[in-house]
Amino acid sequence: MKTFTKQEIAHLEHLYKINLINSVTGLKSANLVGSISNSGIPNVSVFSSVVHFGSEPPLLGMVFRPTTVARNTYDNIKENEYYSINHIQQSIIKDAHHTSAKYPFEVNEFEQTNLEEEYKDNMYVPFVKNAPVQLLMKYVNEYTIQENGTILLLGEIQKLYVEDDLIHTDGFVDLAKGNVVAINGLDGYVKTELIERLPYQRPKK
Amino acid sequence: MKTFTKQEIAHLEHLYKINLINSVTGLKSANLVGSISNSGIPNVSVFSSVVHFGSEPPLLGMVFRPTTVARNTYDNIKENEYYSINHIQQSIIKDAHHTSAKYPFEVNEFEQTNLEEEYKDNMYVPFVKNAPVQLLMKYVNEYTIQENGTILLLGEIQKLYVEDDLIHTDGFVDLAKGNVVAINGLDGYVKTELIERLPYQRPKK
Repeated sequence: MKTFTKQEIAHLEHLYKINLINSVTGLKSANLVGSISNSGIPNVSVFSSVVHFGSEPPLLGMVFRPTTVARNTYDNIKENEYYSINHIQQSIIKDAHHTSAKYPFEVNEFEQTNLEEEYKDNMYVPFVKNAPVQLLMKYVNEYTIQENGTILLLGEIQKLYVEDDLIHTDGFVDLAKGNVVAINGLDGYVKTELIERLPYQRPKK
Repeated sequence: MKTFTKQEIAHLEHLYKINLINSVTGLKSANLVGSISNSGIPNVSVFSSVVHFGSEPPLLGMVFRPTTVARNTYDNIKENEYYSINHIQQSIIKDAHHTSAKYPFEVNEFEQTNLEEEYKDNMYVPFVKNAPVQLLMKYVNEYTIQENGTILLLGEIQKLYVEDDLIHTDGFVDLAKGNVVAINGLDGYVKTELIERLPYQRPKK
C-alpha cells in the first residue's frame, strides 16, 4: 500500500493534497443547494458535505469552508433562513459541477447553466426543477469549528418532495433508482446501483 | 411527487420516519471505525457519517448519536485518542453491517464476524485488514449539538494507507475501482462506478 504520514501529507503539493484528503472520507453525497438573497438574486451551488444529524426533529448539517464561493449560499441562508437541498441525478452532473465556479454574488448560477429554477408552495426559495428528491430547509443553528474556521450549519427539513416510485413501503428512498450520483473527492462523479438492503442486526447468540 | 410536510414527518411511524430521513441526505460514506479500550477490548462499528472538514490540517468529522451502540466507539476514542477509519468494499458488506448490532462493551465485534483485525506501525489501534483505504486518526475535539445531543467528533489524519493502484498521479483516489460502497439510508448498500472526473470550473465569459 502507498502510505502517507502526517508530516508527508503536510508537505504534499496543494492540489495533490486536496485531491487526496477529499477522497479518503469515502463516497460523499451530491447535492445542489438553492438559496436566494433578500434582494432577489438566486444562487445554486454543489455541496458534498450534507450529513444526517437526527430524525426527530429531522436535522441535516452541511459544512462551509471559511473562504469559498459557497459563502454566497451561506450569506443567503443567513438572510432568508430558508433554502433548498436537491439531489443530483446523473443527467445534470456537468451543470451541477459548473456551479462550483467562483461567480460573483450578483450572478445567478441558474442562468449560467441548464439547471432550471422552480418555486413552489409560495415559498421564496429556488429549487432545482426535476431533482428526484427536493428538501425545503430552514436554518436552525451553526457551529464554528475552532480548528480551521469552517462552519457546520444545521437546518431542519420543513417539507420533503420525493419522486413517487423511489419510496419503498417502509420509507426507504431508493436513490440509485432515481439515478442519484455520489461524489468521489473534489471532482469525481459516480453512479450507483443498489446491491441490497440488509436486515436489522441483532447480536449473534 | 410524494410530499411530506414538517408536521406529517413528525407524525410518521418511527421506522418509516428514520428510513425516510436517513435516505434524503443523498448517498453516504461507508466506513468501519476501529477502536480499542485501554483495557484491551477492540471494537469495530459501521459509520455512515464521516465527512471532510479540511485538508490543512486533514480533519474528518463523524457524528455520534446520544444513545446507541456506537458509544462504545466514542468511549474508546476518548480513552485512547487514536482510532482507525477503514473504507468498506463490496465483499464485506454483510459483516460490516453486522457491526451495527448492539453488542455489550466487552464483546469484540471482530470475533463475531469474518472481519480481521490488523495492527501496524506498533500502534495500539485495530485496523480492518484488506480495506482498500485505511486511516490512522487522532481525536482533536468534539462539538455537542444542542438541538438533539448528538456529538460531532473531529479527528486528524495521522497516517494514510491506500492501495497503490487506486491513486491517480494528482492524488485522486478512485474509490469505485477499489469496490468501495456507499450507504443509502440505514441499510442499503450501493456499488459505485466512476462516470468521470470533471475539470476545475471557472466562470463562463
